[in-house]
Amino acid sequence: MVKLRIVLVEPEYEINLGAVARLMRNFGQGRLYIVNPRCEIGFTARMHAKHAEGVLADAKICKSAEEALKGCRLVAGTTGVLRRHRKLLRNPLSPKELSARVEKNAPGAEVALLFGREGIGLSASEIQLCDLLCTIPTSLDYPVMNLSHAVAVMLYALSAEGKKPARPKDDATAGEMDALQKTLAMLVDRQKGHIRNMPKTKLAFRTVIGRAVPTGVELRCMLGVLRTTLKELESRH
Amino acid sequence: MVKLRIVLVEPEYEINLGAVARLMRNFGQGRLYIVNPRCEIGFTARMHAKHAEGVLADAKICKSAEEALKGCRLVAGTTGVLRRHRKLLRNPLSPKELSARVEKNAPGAEVALLFGREGIGLSASEIQLCDLLCTIPTSLDYPVMNLSHAVAVMLYALSAEGKKPARPKDDATAGEMDALQKTLAMLVDRQKGHIRNMPKTKLAFRTVIGRAVPTGVELRCMLGVLRTTLKELESRH
Repeated sequence: MVKLRIVLVEPEYEINLGAVARLMRNFGQGRLYIVNPRCEIGFTARMHAKHAEGVLADAKICKSAEEALKGCRLVAGTTGVLRRHRKLLRNPLSPKELSARVEKNAPGAEVALLFGREGIGLSASEIQLCDLLCTIPTSLDYPVMNLSHAVAVMLYALSAEGKKPARPKDDATAGEMDALQKTLAMLVDRQKGHIRNMPKTKLAFRTVIGRAVPTGVELRCMLGVLRTTLKELESRH
Repeated sequence: MVKLRIVLVEPEYEINLGAVARLMRNFGQGRLYIVNPRCEIGFTARMHAKHAEGVLADAKICKSAEEALKGCRLVAGTTGVLRRHRKLLRNPLSPKELSARVEKNAPGAEVALLFGREGIGLSASEIQLCDLLCTIPTSLDYPVMNLSHAVAVMLYALSAEGKKPARPKDDATAGEMDALQKTLAMLVDRQKGHIRNMPKTKLAFRTVIGRAVPTGVELRCMLGVLRTTLKELESRH
C-alpha cells in the first residue's frame, strides 16, 4: 500500500474538499493537507465527505506548498493545465508510470500528490517543488478534469489499480471444474449427428468456461442444469 | 479506443449528471444513456458539465435498462454495493481486468458500462442484464464511492489507462544522451582523489539519468551546466 499525502493548493469549492475526503477514505488514505483554502471547510464539505468527515477534521491547514510538502520522500505534481507550463514540464508521467516508479524506487516512503487550483493549476514556483510531474491522459479536445475527479483517478492508479476486488472464497475445485467440462463434452457428444467439427465444438465450450473462471456456486448451478438435461435426453431413448 | 456507452440508472443528483458528462468528454466518450432520471437535467447539471453541455444535450433518456442497453456487444455492470448481491455477483472483475478482456475479446465493439442508483445500486433484475460485473477495489472500511467518481475511475481504466500523456516531440537523440553521460563521467573522473569506488559512482549517475529519460531540452540544459563546470575546473589548473 502506497503511503500518500494529498496536498490541495488553494481549493475554492467545498464540494471538492468533501469529495476528496470521501475518495481518500474509499482508497484507504488519510493524510490530507490544504494550502490556503479559499473556501470554508463547513457544512457543504462535510455533506459531500459523507462517512469521511474524519479525514476533513484531521486535515492539516498550511500556509504554503513548501510547508505542506515537508517530510515527503517524493513530490508528484499533477496538472491538466499543461500548456501553461510548457517550458517547465517537458516530460510528465502517466498515473500508471508514476505508480510503477513509486513502487520500484520508493516503496514504503510517503509520497505527496500535489494538486493545483481549480482554475489555474499549480504556479511556476510550486512546479519547481515537484520531483516529477504527472498528467492523466485525457482527450486533447477537453483535457481539464474537475479537481476531485482527477484525485479519484490518481488515488485509483496509485493505491488500487493492481488490486483485485474482494471475492468470496468459494472458488471451484479442480474436481468440480473437471466434472463440468466432462458434462459439457457429453452434451456435445449427444449431438454428434448434427455437428460438423466435434473437437472444435468441444474446445469452444472448454475455452469459454475456462476463460470465465467460474466460482464454485456458479459451477454447481451450471452442472446441475446440464446433468438433469443429459438425464432427460437419456430417458427419452 | 474503446467505444463505451455510459448508462446511468435512475440518477438522483444533477451534480452527478453534469460531472459524468464532463468526464465523458475528458476521456473522449460521447454516448450517454439515462434510465428514468430522478432529477431535472437542468441548470445545475449544465453548470457541472462545463464544456461538455453537448454530451448532456445528446443524452438518450430511456424507460428501462433493457432499452438503454440495446445494441451493445457487452454489458458490464458496476456496483460498489456488493453485499446486496452476494448471491448474484460471485466473481466481479477489477476495472483493469475488464479493460484487458474488452481489448482482447471484443475490440472495436460497443461496450456498455451500467451504473446503478446513488443509494442502492443496481436491482437484481438489472444485474441479470449484465454479461459481467466490475468493482473498483476500494477500502473495505468505506467501499462506496460517489457515482461520478466511480465513473471517473472506470473511464480512466477503460479508455486512458494504458495511454501516455501527450508529450512534446523533442526527445533527446542518442548522441546528446551519450554526450551527457560522457560529461558526467568526466566530472566524476576529476574527483578521483575523493571517491572510493569510481565505477560504482559513475554507474549511479548513468542509471539515474537513464531512468529519468530526459527530453532534448532537459538534456541540453544539464549538458550546458556540466560543460561550463568542467571548463571552469580545467581553467583553475
